[in-house]
This record gives sequence, structure tokens and C-alpha cells, in this order.
Amino acid sequence: MLKPEILDPQGQAVQRALPRLGFEGIADVRQGKRFELEVAEPVSDETLARVHELAEKFLANTVIENFTVRVEDGGTSGDAYGDARGAVA
Amino acid sequence: MLKPEILDPQGQAVQRALPRLGFEGIADVRQGKRFELEVAEPVSDETLARVHELAEKFLANTVIENFTVRVEDGGTSGDAYGDARGAVA
Repeated sequence: MLKPEILDPQGQAVQRALPRLGFEGIADVRQGKRFELEVAEPVSDETLARVHELAEKFLANTVIENFTVRVEDGGTSGDAYGDARGAVA
Repeated sequence: MLKPEILDPQGQAVQRALPRLGFEGIADVRQGKRFELEVAEPVSDETLARVHELAEKFLANTVIENFTVRVEDGGTSGDAYGDARGAVA
């Protein structure tokens, strides 16, 4: 996701639209990217470290984005969401 | 995220690039969107149901996408990731 100090016009647009559409009480909306990586081997700590490196190098723009890597499905798949690059259409 | 039967050219491009960049063993990559919604009130079941409705109606394109809604930060914020619409730039 974009770092908190980085403006997110898309998220703001969604947030401003919601009351008009009948949804009150949403204080903030941020939009970002999510990547699901299916890993061929069982997810060891080493694999997870490699996926983290991959996300940091190629999936996220760490100048403006934070990212987290998370294992889903009981360790059978690696799930990295590297999140919104500068512009998501 | 895009449903499994929907082609994801962006994810495929990332997957094909990875071996070239020195990362082997990633069987599949899917790319999608993620929305973080900050909810003004404590997240009750009712709030969560409303966020789910909101995600279904406005954030996800349920013709081609699946989505999940998840509460993060010990219930202090609602987090809906509605995921990749038809085209993410």
C-alpha cells in the first residue's frame, strides 16, 4: 500500500463517493495492489525470505509503498501483496 | 482477485519475468487490487456486513472477481480488498 504520507487520489475518490451511494461512516479509503504468488515448493523460512526479497525488488516501489508478505492456505502458497505502485489505473 | 478462470496477463508477465531476474520456483502470479477502509466506529458484525455489501456493490466486479473482507488491527479498522477490476494499469 502507499505509505501514509503519500497522497492517494483514487482512495480519496472512493471515500468521497461512498456517502453519496448511501454508505456513511468510512473515515478513510486507501487503494493498493495485491499479488498472489503460488510457490512450487513447500513454503520454508528461506522461501519466504526469497519472496520477501522479490517483493521488495520487483513488486513494490519502496520509495512510496509499504508492503507485507503473508503465507496463506496453511503454508501451501506464498502470498505477497506488494501493493499500489505510483499509479494504479 | 480475478477469478481463477479469468486470464490475468499482468500476473503472467510478472511470472515469466521472474526466472530472468533470478527467482525460480514461482508457479503462478496473480495480480489484484486491495482496498483498506478505515471505519469510524468499532467494527461490529453489522458494520462488517455493510462493508461486505459495499465491497460487493462498488469495489469488486463480481462478474470476473472474487473478494474477501477481513478485519485488521484487532478490530479497530475494516479492511476490504475488492481486488483487480477488469484492468489494473
